[in-house]
Amino acid sequence: MSHDTLSPEFEAVVAAAASAAPAFAATSPEDRARAIVAVADALEGAKERLVAIAMRETGLTEARLSGEVTRTAVQLRLFADTLVDGGYLDVRIDPADDDFALGVRPDVRRTHLPLGPVINFSASNFPFAFSVMGGDSASILAAGCPLIVKAHSGHPDLSDATAEVAAEALAAAGMPDGVFQLIHGREAGVAVLKDPRIKAGAFTGSIGAGRLLADIAASRPAPIPFYGELGSVNPVFITADAIAERTDEIASGYLASVSGSAGQLCTKPGFAFIPEGSALPDAIRAAAGELPEHRLLDPRIARSFAERRDAILASPGVRPVIEGGVRIDEQGQGWATPTVVAVSLDDFRRGKEALVEEAFGPLSILVETPQGTDLAALLPEFTEGNLTGTLHLSSEETTGETANAAELRALVDAISQQVGRVLFNGWSTGVAVTPAQQHGGPWPATTNDSSTSVGTSAIKRFLRPVAYQNAPAAFLPEALRDDNPLGVPQAVAPAGASKSWGREL
Amino acid sequence: MSHDTLSPEFEAVVAAAASAAPAFAATSPEDRARAIVAVADALEGAKERLVAIAMRETGLTEARLSGEVTRTAVQLRLFADTLVDGGYLDVRIDPADDDFALGVRPDVRRTHLPLGPVINFSASNFPFAFSVMGGDSASILAAGCPLIVKAHSGHPDLSDATAEVAAEALAAAGMPDGVFQLIHGREAGVAVLKDPRIKAGAFTGSIGAGRLLADIAASRPAPIPFYGELGSVNPVFITADAIAERTDEIASGYLASVSGSAGQLCTKPGFAFIPEGSALPDAIRAAAGELPEHRLLDPRIARSFAERRDAILASPGVRPVIEGGVRIDEQGQGWATPTVVAVSLDDFRRGKEALVEEAFGPLSILVETPQGTDLAALLPEFTEGNLTGTLHLSSEETTGETANAAELRALVDAISQQVGRVLFNGWSTGVAVTPAQQHGGPWPATTNDSSTSVGTSAIKRFLRPVAYQNAPAAFLPEALRDDNPLGVPQAVAPAGASKSWGREL
Repeated sequence: MSHDTLSPEFEAVVAAAASAAPAFAATSPEDRARAIVAVADALEGAKERLVAIAMRETGLTEARLSGEVTRTAVQLRLFADTLVDGGYLDVRIDPADDDFALGVRPDVRRTHLPLGPVINFSASNFPFAFSVMGGDSASILAAGCPLIVKAHSGHPDLSDATAEVAAEALAAAGMPDGVFQLIHGREAGVAVLKDPRIKAGAFTGSIGAGRLLADIAASRPAPIPFYGELGSVNPVFITADAIAERTDEIASGYLASVSGSAGQLCTKPGFAFIPEGSALPDAIRAAAGELPEHRLLDPRIARSFAERRDAILASPGVRPVIEGGVRIDEQGQGWATPTVVAVSLDDFRRGKEALVEEAFGPLSILVETPQGTDLAALLPEFTEGNLTGTLHLSSEETTGETANAAELRALVDAISQQVGRVLFNGWSTGVAVTPAQQHGGPWPATTNDSSTSVGTSAIKRFLRPVAYQNAPAAFLPEALRDDNPLGVPQAVAPAGASKSWGREL
Repeated sequence: MSHDTLSPEFEAVVAAAASAAPAFAATSPEDRARAIVAVADALEGAKERLVAIAMRETGLTEARLSGEVTRTAVQLRLFADTLVDGGYLDVRIDPADDDFALGVRPDVRRTHLPLGPVINFSASNFPFAFSVMGGDSASILAAGCPLIVKAHSGHPDLSDATAEVAAEALAAAGMPDGVFQLIHGREAGVAVLKDPRIKAGAFTGSIGAGRLLADIAASRPAPIPFYGELGSVNPVFITADAIAERTDEIASGYLASVSGSAGQLCTKPGFAFIPEGSALPDAIRAAAGELPEHRLLDPRIARSFAERRDAILASPGVRPVIEGGVRIDEQGQGWATPTVVAVSLDDFRRGKEALVEEAFGPLSILVETPQGTDLAALLPEFTEGNLTGTLHLSSEETTGETANAAELRALVDAISQQVGRVLFNGWSTGVAVTPAQQHGGPWPATTNDSSTSVGTSAIKRFLRPVAYQNAPAAFLPEALRDDNPLGVPQAVAPAGASKSWGREL
């Protein structure tokens, strides 16, 4: 094992994480849960101070950032409960069976163990909820894996301040040294990801950076899982009847979803497919009024957004519905007002190259489809994997008993094939932090569409199944013991049942 | 999307799989389960004919192959039951909650959908259980994914004959055309794996081939999961007291595990760590007697085994316990009798390069460790990831109350870090096909240690989570409906509970 790419500073970080791994894995679920709750409490206690730093570094509003701290704390508490519940361990116990269909079956018991040290590359656009102590970090710590966070360069001071609060809370709660460390710098992050002692990576960011890191993880001498959440354009489909029924509500909902946080959300609706000649574009224009300027996260994002916006506006047949704009100030910071454009399906097809890629910022494209367009067939033609897909239906259409029901069902199936979350009559921004949540989707929405980065299933990314065969009670992990001291759900496959497998069908 | 690497023949195969995907995904769990049971019944019905072909092509014994057909059928039936039970869908329902900790929570429901077409590269050493209709295929079909099997070149006729039996059963059970197809040829397999319509790969075979295919899957324009089960040396640790208590039983068990199926099993114990000066080597020599020759699977494996055996015997300090041998006949087929060697820990360390790599065939190495050796510390020094790790203890030691208990517990922890299955007082060959089974482990045992290729969890590899937000009943997948027509387990996170998350700790 060669660690020669690591400078002494980062060698010490990885060594500390590696040496903390056994002790952290051995902490009781309750102790780990209490430590995670202590982090939540400490973050909320420091909210005012942290939000002030975040406002300066990111340009996001106080209301948004303050809400994000609460969300982050709730998320940590949810993982604490998940941990104590123990259902995530998916414990299975198959007792020895002398009458097994294939001869004698030994006693086999299966649980999940933490992977070991994990590096989490934090995001620019959620300085709390997908950053130092965000959802990925919460699930890594809950799983019992030592955590190394690579700070996002867009909010270094906030990262340091958050890390200090969290490290103090973890230490006070008795967690071993080395369970949580913060590093800065892209090269350091890459070097750590390559280290053989690191067992998984998590990431939220761009397709370019995510692909680069995923390729590094996959090409290591010992490859490791890499859970990246990358780009998404989140298509929306709005029926003629839905528009007829609630034009203004849809117009204002769409506009709020496109422009909130200056459109810098991975779930921003990038495209809305609407019927040709509908009243929606005018209603959106009317709803817009005088929209205020919002600062973009950092100069790089501002430049990239300005370029994407220019390219989209210059694509043949693209008509501004709300012109909006972006100006770069003397410090290089960008200030944007929302842009909404409309384009016919034909012109969208012709301009696909320029139009289809994600525009990270407050911009969205209305694609006007002729009556009778097969939207389900259209979908694979235009979009790859997405985090979300949304359908707006009229109240009659929601019953599934209208003339177009089969068509709508086919569209829902087509959307389901492409996304991690299918929404009805709502907007994809604002991801509920709740056990059933799925925040993921086929490439390029994520590098790994079997997982989620929001919701309690997120913890599974950092665990590895291990079975114990004929283990004496003294050597079994607690979760697998007959006396079940942790009180976790245990699924038992009773002896004597195997000869009836498949026989009841 | 360019499919230009596919010849017309394989283009037709992939197109058929892709066009079968929606219809197959839409089959009811019961119908799919019945079809899988029909395959099991058909294989057992054709057992005599299939075993005869397999004997000719693989050199494995009739008893072994006949048992393998039964195992394969039981495995299919287990997946049929898994499918109908529906627990594998991990259904979660979070009803709308006006009193949610972060504002109003929408109704969010999460289930799992099939990934789409999957290619499965079958194995040489299990012509039934890890081949055309083996465990990977069973879990792919159970998940509702169209299956393309790449036949192993070692048993082409058996692959064709098995495929014919399976295809007929699937068609008779009403499954759509294109849900199961067989292809031959390594280049064809690689071209199919690269096709954008293929959504995952499965593989059982060598580290070299597995790494090659895993790298192809990871470097596609849209990367896909690749579940490969590769190489493993399956370390065994035997205490002095265990040997003292049951020398002959351990000797004969070890020998049977090393020599069964001519040692061509991924779970063959490649190394046993035993105390210096123990009676075990003599007992093994005595138990061996006159062991019969067993044909190796194919000429390539025979040549490779002969080379590895020579290199191991030539390594300084290596002493034959049972010399064994391998001869290559006029057809190039290899015939082997088991080889067991012993080596001191020092010489093992010195000869590591030559010794540590898997020898696929009937050969195992006894490493004699001086009293007081810290075996837990030794483990990471010698072995990478493994499918299994085994501990043989005396009856007193199993109580966990002997003087060396802490040491043994540390060894169990160290083994757990390296393997997918930890065994006590048994042998790693003979993997029980049972819900709790874990057949996997850290690289290079597998390409992806979060999964298993035996046991009911194997189905999870071919599914993708999707959440539905505020979906009208008419558009919800059946598993998510309130009236639960499939009768699947549904985990509900009740409204009103979120404000107490993390508060009971």
